[in-house]
Amino acid sequence: MRKESRLIRWIWWIVVVAALFFLGFVIGWFAKPSHANNVNSSASSKYLKEFLDEMQPDQIREHLRKFTRLPHLAGTEQNLRYAEQIKKEWLEFGLDSVEMVPYDVLLSYPNKSQPNYISIVDRFGNEVFNTSLAEPVPEGYEDVSNIVPPYSAFSAKGQPEGDLVYVNYGRTEDFFQLEREMGINVTGKIVIVRYGKIFRGNKVKNAMLVGAKGIIMFSDPADYWAAGVQPYPDGWNLPGGGAQRGNVLNLNGAGDPLTPGYPAKEYTYRFSLDAGVGLPKIPVHPIGFQDAVHLLRKMGGQIPPNNWKGALDVSYRIGPGFTDDFKSQKVRMNIYTNNQVTRIYNVIGRIRGALEPDRYVILGGHRDAWVFGGIDPMSGVAVVHETVRSAGRLLSKGWRPRRTIIFASWDAEEFGLLGSTEWAEDNAKLLQERAVAYINADSAIEGMYTLRVDCTPSLHTLVYDLTKQIASPEEEEVGVSLYESWHKRDNWTNDRDAPRISKLGSGSDFEAYFIRLGIAAGRARYTKNKDSSVLCVFVCIQKTERYSSYPVYHSVYETFEIVQKFYDPSFKRLRAVAQVRGGLIFQLADSQVLPLDVNEYADSLRKYAQSIAQLAQKHPEEMKMFDVSFDSLFSAVENMTFASRDFHERLQALNRADPLQVRVMNDQLMYLERAFIDPLGLPGRPFYRHVIFAPSSHNKYAGESFPGIYDALFDIENSDDPGKSWEEVKRQISIAAFTVHAAAMTLTPPA
Amino acid sequence: MRKESRLIRWIWWIVVVAALFFLGFVIGWFAKPSHANNVNSSASSKYLKEFLDEMQPDQIREHLRKFTRLPHLAGTEQNLRYAEQIKKEWLEFGLDSVEMVPYDVLLSYPNKSQPNYISIVDRFGNEVFNTSLAEPVPEGYEDVSNIVPPYSAFSAKGQPEGDLVYVNYGRTEDFFQLEREMGINVTGKIVIVRYGKIFRGNKVKNAMLVGAKGIIMFSDPADYWAAGVQPYPDGWNLPGGGAQRGNVLNLNGAGDPLTPGYPAKEYTYRFSLDAGVGLPKIPVHPIGFQDAVHLLRKMGGQIPPNNWKGALDVSYRIGPGFTDDFKSQKVRMNIYTNNQVTRIYNVIGRIRGALEPDRYVILGGHRDAWVFGGIDPMSGVAVVHETVRSAGRLLSKGWRPRRTIIFASWDAEEFGLLGSTEWAEDNAKLLQERAVAYINADSAIEGMYTLRVDCTPSLHTLVYDLTKQIASPEEEEVGVSLYESWHKRDNWTNDRDAPRISKLGSGSDFEAYFIRLGIAAGRARYTKNKDSSVLCVFVCIQKTERYSSYPVYHSVYETFEIVQKFYDPSFKRLRAVAQVRGGLIFQLADSQVLPLDVNEYADSLRKYAQSIAQLAQKHPEEMKMFDVSFDSLFSAVENMTFASRDFHERLQALNRADPLQVRVMNDQLMYLERAFIDPLGLPGRPFYRHVIFAPSSHNKYAGESFPGIYDALFDIENSDDPGKSWEEVKRQISIAAFTVHAAAMTLTPPA
Repeated sequence: MRKESRLIRWIWWIVVVAALFFLGFVIGWFAKPSHANNVNSSASSKYLKEFLDEMQPDQIREHLRKFTRLPHLAGTEQNLRYAEQIKKEWLEFGLDSVEMVPYDVLLSYPNKSQPNYISIVDRFGNEVFNTSLAEPVPEGYEDVSNIVPPYSAFSAKGQPEGDLVYVNYGRTEDFFQLEREMGINVTGKIVIVRYGKIFRGNKVKNAMLVGAKGIIMFSDPADYWAAGVQPYPDGWNLPGGGAQRGNVLNLNGAGDPLTPGYPAKEYTYRFSLDAGVGLPKIPVHPIGFQDAVHLLRKMGGQIPPNNWKGALDVSYRIGPGFTDDFKSQKVRMNIYTNNQVTRIYNVIGRIRGALEPDRYVILGGHRDAWVFGGIDPMSGVAVVHETVRSAGRLLSKGWRPRRTIIFASWDAEEFGLLGSTEWAEDNAKLLQERAVAYINADSAIEGMYTLRVDCTPSLHTLVYDLTKQIASPEEEEVGVSLYESWHKRDNWTNDRDAPRISKLGSGSDFEAYFIRLGIAAGRARYTKNKDSSVLCVFVCIQKTERYSSYPVYHSVYETFEIVQKFYDPSFKRLRAVAQVRGGLIFQLADSQVLPLDVNEYADSLRKYAQSIAQLAQKHPEEMKMFDVSFDSLFSAVENMTFASRDFHERLQALNRADPLQVRVMNDQLMYLERAFIDPLGLPGRPFYRHVIFAPSSHNKYAGESFPGIYDALFDIENSDDPGKSWEEVKRQISIAAFTVHAAAMTLTPPA
Repeated sequence: MRKESRLIRWIWWIVVVAALFFLGFVIGWFAKPSHANNVNSSASSKYLKEFLDEMQPDQIREHLRKFTRLPHLAGTEQNLRYAEQIKKEWLEFGLDSVEMVPYDVLLSYPNKSQPNYISIVDRFGNEVFNTSLAEPVPEGYEDVSNIVPPYSAFSAKGQPEGDLVYVNYGRTEDFFQLEREMGINVTGKIVIVRYGKIFRGNKVKNAMLVGAKGIIMFSDPADYWAAGVQPYPDGWNLPGGGAQRGNVLNLNGAGDPLTPGYPAKEYTYRFSLDAGVGLPKIPVHPIGFQDAVHLLRKMGGQIPPNNWKGALDVSYRIGPGFTDDFKSQKVRMNIYTNNQVTRIYNVIGRIRGALEPDRYVILGGHRDAWVFGGIDPMSGVAVVHETVRSAGRLLSKGWRPRRTIIFASWDAEEFGLLGSTEWAEDNAKLLQERAVAYINADSAIEGMYTLRVDCTPSLHTLVYDLTKQIASPEEEEVGVSLYESWHKRDNWTNDRDAPRISKLGSGSDFEAYFIRLGIAAGRARYTKNKDSSVLCVFVCIQKTERYSSYPVYHSVYETFEIVQKFYDPSFKRLRAVAQVRGGLIFQLADSQVLPLDVNEYADSLRKYAQSIAQLAQKHPEEMKMFDVSFDSLFSAVENMTFASRDFHERLQALNRADPLQVRVMNDQLMYLERAFIDPLGLPGRPFYRHVIFAPSSHNKYAGESFPGIYDALFDIENSDDPGKSWEEVKRQISIAAFTVHAAAMTLTPPA
């Protein structure tokens, strides 16, 4: 071989070797995934289907049966036992960790040796009538002990005696009407009020404001009977001997009344009872309509307008006091209820997130019940239990969510959302920095008609997407999705052709998470037909209420059987609710990009701003005189709209292979809700801090957004100094505009 | 060729090809970084060196010269011009973006047609003496217009007339002594007070509290003369005709007095002046000691204790009023200063972060000056300018920091930290979620001795590491590091063998970032010798003061020349300060793992807890009687110590190749400072929210941490109801313990 030829051969060899090497190198380079969390979204959705399919009606039935055998009031031995059982079972289901988290909060119980009741007394002080000391116990539960009789938790003690005044629902407008139109002064009287329309604690607050020395609350059949339905146990209406328990605090989100702002730990400083938040200063007591009739039928005074009349066979006279025949008789309340600092227990379970352990998706609901809690809250507890079981099954198959999931069984919700609020206070910094969303799990059913969802606007799209993947639970609807079933029954009417989603109100455990901390939140349950006239009494309550209701609400008749016999015999409705609640946390925890839609938030804000501006327009001259304008708010809403559109466009272009780029945009999505929190709180309510979605102080505007502006407008209508009130309106518009601008800013590119 | 041989040859070929390909593949696979942000830390530190080396004394001299030619009071045309120039030059230096951000805030100016002054009037009302209307203008500046005469910004208007009372420094203890020991009632009097020891706004607040109807403040040579130093221009002492300007607000971090909590934008609601935050209700005026002598030497009444005497040739009699010889003469203040809403401009420049654009490291300092601002703030402005120039050079070489750097030129700091606070309010949500650290850049020099650093404990280690990489600016110290030079001059004494680092106090633009929002913060400057007895007058001020000072502070004599002739002729001290401030932001912005040391925080907390517990132990019986214990606080500190140690151990084991794992731990580091923020604020001070590092309400405890507890303890010593005050102590201990526990919790593994 010649030298040249050899050289050429060598060169050729080197070229080949280099080329092969280079080819290998290039393929190796590109074959390597640029990062491990390049999530396979079809794998995730396969797991979603498995997760939803795993949930079984029979299992939910079992869970509900198991946890409704005994009364388990907050602070009692039995409620601790259920907590321990939940902890044990959640661990068996496969959660990574479950812990009991105790707090020492102010609770309130009747005095066991001195029962509460209300009497009619004659001129000699003899009790000629006494209300019942307990509800008749339903069949099968006769031997159960520790059923707490109906009472108003945190009532003041006392034996006030005096004349009755009937005050309808005890709303602000009822008291205005009483005072201004009927000319009746309530000072020093005992008021009798029917349950409904507003939160009972507000009735008590209103009664105190007008100087009443006691307040009796009763369930009128007009509000707690559905037409054509038998009372329990033959149907699901409230028996005449049944009464609604409940706390009568005005906490405005403070949690434990003695430790506002801080968790009620052993070392925590406690205010004295006098300085406690929201404790009523007058005795309060609830009765059933069987007892109420005895008080009402003797009453004298004016006949009220028709909308003050309930469905009892009495005239609903206003008083004060009884008719001439019974003039010498008075009403006496005998209330011996005690406040006492008591240990409560939350159960907190966790699934550690695989890639972002410091991002939390929370599913929380309370465990404590007034008695058995067949509906409230155990229908929710059963649903959460089944969700945990299903998640555990997935874990055993190798699934692990991208983010951390936290399951919470709250204690003492019935005493003012105490367990959930104390835990939120305890973990405020972590939650503020890390919580993606909070899904609430109180009662899972309150009717037999269709789904009801209340949530923050950014969850709308996820709720729709998810319910399209869930089957309708209605027997006759084979092959129909929950979305279709729901849409058919409750369309959003004028606004849009989609199932109606409502705003989140207040009155359940999401308050501290949503209204105080600004964590995106939602709730879902099965509900009744709002449009049906037979049930209109409930509908009217639904639309604007701080609480939800069904006839046996908070009575001893909330049993396992009422669910099994009437509300959900197949347990498919509860399964559907489990799939919605569970599906929400699954998608929030496992999607690579958070399934939050900020355009929906912008759209909602525009509607809310239009509503409030329209209301203010009722006073065109004054708006001119005091130079009031909503321009800044509308301008902020436009800014938000633009920022949202732009954000979603950038989201489309996101390089999902870059974990930091994904995290940056997810953080913007997560923190959007936080942007609506004003650290200074709403006027006089430091723990209600959500500028858009806190409840208004006035029941008149209970369902409205922008509570600060509504509250100020309310004062205009009811104040002696409209100039000052308009100044407050202007200040609140300015705060709202600033807040919406700030929210828009969080969506712009971060640098 | 035989078939077999060919086959073998083919096989051999295939093996070779496959092997080469495989080799290439493997090398390609491993050659590819598993993620782009696998930072090469030596590259980063090479850039640090380049960044520090680029900063030049001559450049700093030029910057200082350029921006000190004309007076540029906040709200004036000239201060806007400087803002525009800074914007232009920052863009030229290479920042990614620079914007002007305006706010409309309440400022205060003397009335140009009716000057402020103080008179002695005789019985006929004739002015027998008037204080000077302006300071003698320094040489070279005679033709300059718009030099604002000495005044107290936000003084009330008025012409009060009455007897003088000399009240020493106007501290709480001075007024106590006056009232309790000397038996002097100040109600209806005009007080004369010497500058020093506490913030002038607090002197005014104290004077108002005791009922004074006016307050005159003067600079006593005892506090504003260094021994053996000539007055300017022959030295750096304050001439007798010089006086200290300054605002006399009590804002407690509120920012613009008319828009507390919200940015002062065009649409923002403004309170009326009556409802404004912190505005004094009485006239206030500052004078030099040449004028003060005229007032003081006529004074009658008691001779005060020695520690009330300054260095003027007068007896410092207390009054009230003049000696018998001048009994009929009174003092009259003539104050015509106006409050007015005025537009101010921040300049905000940005370098976008390469990997984490949503993490912000901020270097901010003010631009507005009382006159020329030779020291305050332009020595700081020159340093920031040089830092920006150096960063721009690095950018041009291909460097880009991991995180976003924000440079801020604040306006209206002298009027109550207005520009920085409004911007913090405007961007609160972004800052809360994204800000890693804030480095303050006010005056860069106040003495010629050594470095002074005040910062949050988690920055201690970074400050030490960094100063070891910077050269001493002292001519005689060749080859000596700044760390060594500093250590030699100011050792931490008992506590530890390292240069002293102080706590961050208040009174400059870091307030809103550190005390309100809880962003890790620090400041650095060149300072005087605290231990030297010749300068002890300044030392004493230094140690516990809310402000920093040097003789010509806030006078017309703060010129370029005073820096060039006396403070830093070589401009190497300013270069060293630039390297410290700049190096801090460089390391915070560019290190893969945030250079924050949480162990230092835990150690500091232990010391602070011990100090406060010791103070309380002065009342052992009462502590027993009212059941007061610090156990919960110490237990929280132990918890924090453990969590910190554990955190740093986990940090050692961190997989730095995983960008999400790095981000998770960095977020824990970033949010630690946030954990010390109480959203409810300190009692009565909603914008001072840092439980550890807010200033105490009482100057007595100005330098202490845990202000809530100190304030409560102060009340015990001065209250009629010690039981109630001890309750507040207990509550504050509980809040402190909770806060430290919460901080510890943020450091534990996130799930």
